[in-house]
Amino acid sequence: MSDYIVKPERPGGFLDFLPADYLAREKMLKTIETVFRQFGFDPIETPRIEFKKILAGETSDTGKNIFHIKQSDNDNEPLALPFDHTVPFARILAANPYNPKSKTGIRLPWRRMVVGPVFRSDNPQHGRFRQFYQFDADIAGTSSMMADAEIVALMVRTMEALDVSNFQIRLNNRKLLNGLSLLCKIDDRLSISHENIVYEMMRILDKLDKIGKKAVFQELRRAPESPDDPAPHLSDDAISKIAAFLDIQGTNDEKIHACEKLFNNIEIAMTGITELKEIFTYLTAMNVSLKQVSVDLSIARGLDYYTGPVMEMALLDAPQFGSVFSGGRYNNLVSRFTGKELPAVGASIGVDRLFAALKHLKLIDHAQQTVADVMIIRIAPDRDADYLSMANQLRSANVSTEICLVEDTTFKRQFNYAISRGVRFVVICGENEFDQNKVQVKNLETRKQIELDVEMLVDYMVQETSKERR
Amino acid sequence: MSDYIVKPERPGGFLDFLPADYLAREKMLKTIETVFRQFGFDPIETPRIEFKKILAGETSDTGKNIFHIKQSDNDNEPLALPFDHTVPFARILAANPYNPKSKTGIRLPWRRMVVGPVFRSDNPQHGRFRQFYQFDADIAGTSSMMADAEIVALMVRTMEALDVSNFQIRLNNRKLLNGLSLLCKIDDRLSISHENIVYEMMRILDKLDKIGKKAVFQELRRAPESPDDPAPHLSDDAISKIAAFLDIQGTNDEKIHACEKLFNNIEIAMTGITELKEIFTYLTAMNVSLKQVSVDLSIARGLDYYTGPVMEMALLDAPQFGSVFSGGRYNNLVSRFTGKELPAVGASIGVDRLFAALKHLKLIDHAQQTVADVMIIRIAPDRDADYLSMANQLRSANVSTEICLVEDTTFKRQFNYAISRGVRFVVICGENEFDQNKVQVKNLETRKQIELDVEMLVDYMVQETSKERR
Repeated sequence: MSDYIVKPERPGGFLDFLPADYLAREKMLKTIETVFRQFGFDPIETPRIEFKKILAGETSDTGKNIFHIKQSDNDNEPLALPFDHTVPFARILAANPYNPKSKTGIRLPWRRMVVGPVFRSDNPQHGRFRQFYQFDADIAGTSSMMADAEIVALMVRTMEALDVSNFQIRLNNRKLLNGLSLLCKIDDRLSISHENIVYEMMRILDKLDKIGKKAVFQELRRAPESPDDPAPHLSDDAISKIAAFLDIQGTNDEKIHACEKLFNNIEIAMTGITELKEIFTYLTAMNVSLKQVSVDLSIARGLDYYTGPVMEMALLDAPQFGSVFSGGRYNNLVSRFTGKELPAVGASIGVDRLFAALKHLKLIDHAQQTVADVMIIRIAPDRDADYLSMANQLRSANVSTEICLVEDTTFKRQFNYAISRGVRFVVICGENEFDQNKVQVKNLETRKQIELDVEMLVDYMVQETSKERR
Repeated sequence: MSDYIVKPERPGGFLDFLPADYLAREKMLKTIETVFRQFGFDPIETPRIEFKKILAGETSDTGKNIFHIKQSDNDNEPLALPFDHTVPFARILAANPYNPKSKTGIRLPWRRMVVGPVFRSDNPQHGRFRQFYQFDADIAGTSSMMADAEIVALMVRTMEALDVSNFQIRLNNRKLLNGLSLLCKIDDRLSISHENIVYEMMRILDKLDKIGKKAVFQELRRAPESPDDPAPHLSDDAISKIAAFLDIQGTNDEKIHACEKLFNNIEIAMTGITELKEIFTYLTAMNVSLKQVSVDLSIARGLDYYTGPVMEMALLDAPQFGSVFSGGRYNNLVSRFTGKELPAVGASIGVDRLFAALKHLKLIDHAQQTVADVMIIRIAPDRDADYLSMANQLRSANVSTEICLVEDTTFKRQFNYAISRGVRFVVICGENEFDQNKVQVKNLETRKQIELDVEMLVDYMVQETSKERR
């Protein structure tokens, strides 16, 4: 034990969940889990610590906001905390190839879900978490657009199960954006390849929401300042094509039709359009309302690994929370480990952001403060063994029961404690009741109190606690 | 994307849980959680990262096996990963005192449970985990032995719920061991206080199981090698008292009686004996079989913070796994943060160790490999929209359904996939069936196949999947 006092504080960007918050969040997580399992996504868990080289490669600058582990022995391979669940998913896929003889390993296609914290070593600031839960569903091992459509349907069904009705899924295809770069005729340049320039172009386009069209065009026009500066340096003609693309308006069908005209000769973009059409066909088959899924040609998704359809979900009544559920197709994430492509598509919920948004929309029920339904208060001296026996009988019947352990055993003090704890029922039994084999039960929601024969207590409480909380 | 290949490996001492293991472990965790909630323990969650000063103090050598976070900015307060849930529990208690006016903060007594990973930066070696789950229940804010008895009852009920029958809870009281140090007349010595010497004596006694009585006595006799060496340096007379104490045999009552004789004049030990007796009275009231709880005077529990009753659970048919559920009373953990004592008692399950032990005892059911109950296979070309529609209807009725997405859509290939995935039912619908509005359902457990009208499919699957898995 140390002799001086440590201030009991928590680092910025990390949360405690006390019971009321925990229970409300748990309900949301269970709802999500139920939907994900209906779709057949199998749960897995990966460790909180991975080799840094797995997470970031050894050259990538993704390393910047990774929490690194300090190890005493410097010869050890560096460790770090995962910043998402997708990279560990790719590691697991690469490490467990299916062996048809021994029937071990992961048989593809594989659909898995995962929920747990991920870590970003950002500067702590208000509303920015350094640990936050992500809830992911991914399907690896198929290029079929049925998988992409299932992911979109999963997003819709999840929101419906959470009682959110006013949401929209914005759908695009990275192949259209790649087609756009071909329309803009981006070539290799000095010491920089056209892929790098295209990547920079995507990065700039992804800022559309934040900085607006004018600033985006300005950045796209910018000339390189050094031989390795990936500045796109687009011509007026190229910018006008991008503008035309971003100006495409109308219904989903109209947008798709306009794209077909614009990308007439560009094969990759035409493939992307076909994929979008296929997804809409499958969504219709799954009875998904197409009002809730719209083509949005401005969606790029920041990360560089997307290769096909990309989707983002917005809460229309709480747009300030941004996208709370998003994803897309990424066909070469596993190649980092195997050198081979493996098609995959998935989406991820930002759990803590979604929870904050649902709270804002008043869709989170905070009423439950405790798992205990019943509190037994101790007003007869020397009857503690009897109170414990009562608690044991209730618990054996699966009635969650707390025995009041406040030191001041006056009725008032214990009753106040029961109220502040948020239990639904108080069991009261004094000397009188013990003498007559009776017990009082007070319902704190209805304020009604009834007297029972002691042998009736368990049956009565089983019945009453099985009713919904108010 | 990096251009070279990274080996998809995981650091030693960290586990992946693939679906079959995840689902088996989930069942065990749910069983534990149900019992803990019956006892009214409310769930909380604390972050995976804390200030190092919170976890280890600034002088403690507990710091040795803590994972430290490497931060880019050296001015930041050092961060680390928690090595248990008890210290974060103490932090939360200290940071949220109850305010009777605003009715905010934590009202004591408070019973909370927590489950999640903790981290020890040990050298990775076989069977030694560096990340492992602990499942804790604690009651803070009462000195009543009712709380200690409830913790013991919780341990018993948890094991019963897990279908373990041959277990034993070993109960001791640190006050007896403190009394023993008084019997041995340990005084302050040069630059070292008697508390430190007593602590060293406890540490040595705790090794009884591992190194045996002879070696323990030898260590207890050892003379200090420097002024600050806490070696107990016990006399022959003191050793004979310890030997007498450790030789106490018999039933629980006989052991307690023998202690009363031995500790006749030592007040603290007599208090400890009274506490043990009280716990047994309460356990009897809770209908706990006293055969499963025995006084074991050799139990000390390694950590220095225990102040009263201590308990360890052993699986008698799997002793090699050691104690999988243990705890005790610690009345001054919070004082590190507040300078004041706060009584608390609790116990912790080593989840991964318990899981390994239950596996060894064949009490883990590994049969479930997937959450999907039904797989729809796609043998009619161009009917994908119909298959997705079928999947949507089943999922809407909460039947977990996977649609087969293997690229090779021959019947054989898809059927083999369904078997390897471990689903219970396969839905088969070819051109013929579509023409006749029929569908085939094959039960992979019974191998029976039936034909249904397509409109009967959902009702039939709801009924069949609600039956227990075999």
